[in-house]
Amino acid sequence: MLTVFLFGVWPVGTSPAADGEQPATQPLTVHPIGCVRKAKGKTEIVLDRRYQPGLLGLDGFSHIYVYWWFDRNDTPEKRATLKVNTTRGVFATHAPFRPNLIAMTRCKIISVKDNVIEIEGIDAFADTPVLDLKN
Amino acid sequence: MLTVFLFGVWPVGTSPAADGEQPATQPLTVHPIGCVRKAKGKTEIVLDRRYQPGLLGLDGFSHIYVYWWFDRNDTPEKRATLKVNTTRGVFATHAPFRPNLIAMTRCKIISVKDNVIEIEGIDAFADTPVLDLKN
Repeated sequence: MLTVFLFGVWPVGTSPAADGEQPATQPLTVHPIGCVRKAKGKTEIVLDRRYQPGLLGLDGFSHIYVYWWFDRNDTPEKRATLKVNTTRGVFATHAPFRPNLIAMTRCKIISVKDNVIEIEGIDAFADTPVLDLKN
Repeated sequence: MLTVFLFGVWPVGTSPAADGEQPATQPLTVHPIGCVRKAKGKTEIVLDRRYQPGLLGLDGFSHIYVYWWFDRNDTPEKRATLKVNTTRGVFATHAPFRPNLIAMTRCKIISVKDNVIEIEGIDAFADTPVLDLKN
């Protein structure tokens, strides 16, 4: 994992400056569609069964883009961290702490069966929430 | 834009099957960090000023991955659509309707000034919420 200095924290709960150029920041809700399972030497994306129809045709592809949530970093402090070090802000990096904890990994598909996709591997821990899959 | 048939809708508000393999689906909240601005022939990502420190060092790069929200499709019906057509589920596509409306575009950076990144273009409408930027 990345070893970094953390600083540049903005106060949680502050409002943006009252400035005509400021965009709206209405919160949005995402619902995990499944999670990462690592067991018996396999790495799998296990979807909630209600999303299974969304996998139709995926077995014809070699890779999938998996969007997932850095849930181990979901604390107000880590979501408020804006600088990785003295020269780099979080938006100029892939750092796993950021305002919105969205991560994306391109994964090689081994098989698709029912609501389970076996993949070659992923840089996410077991039980990590999965948000989306795209081809 | 993609022209598709929409069907394969799951009932909004249903629960996943009570099955030991079903992953948890705790909702997560994302807060837009800014939005897309298109004006005077320019395309820009305008960040809320409180996130400006996160841009440190970005001006040394040629491209940025912009994560954004398909806000024009944020309806229960479109978020419930799981099949694009008779042969393809949403997770085997980039379709702009899906359970979580996360989109990602790699954009060429023209300039970075204060809280504004001018980019060459993006396949998102003006005022689209921006969720994250990654290098």
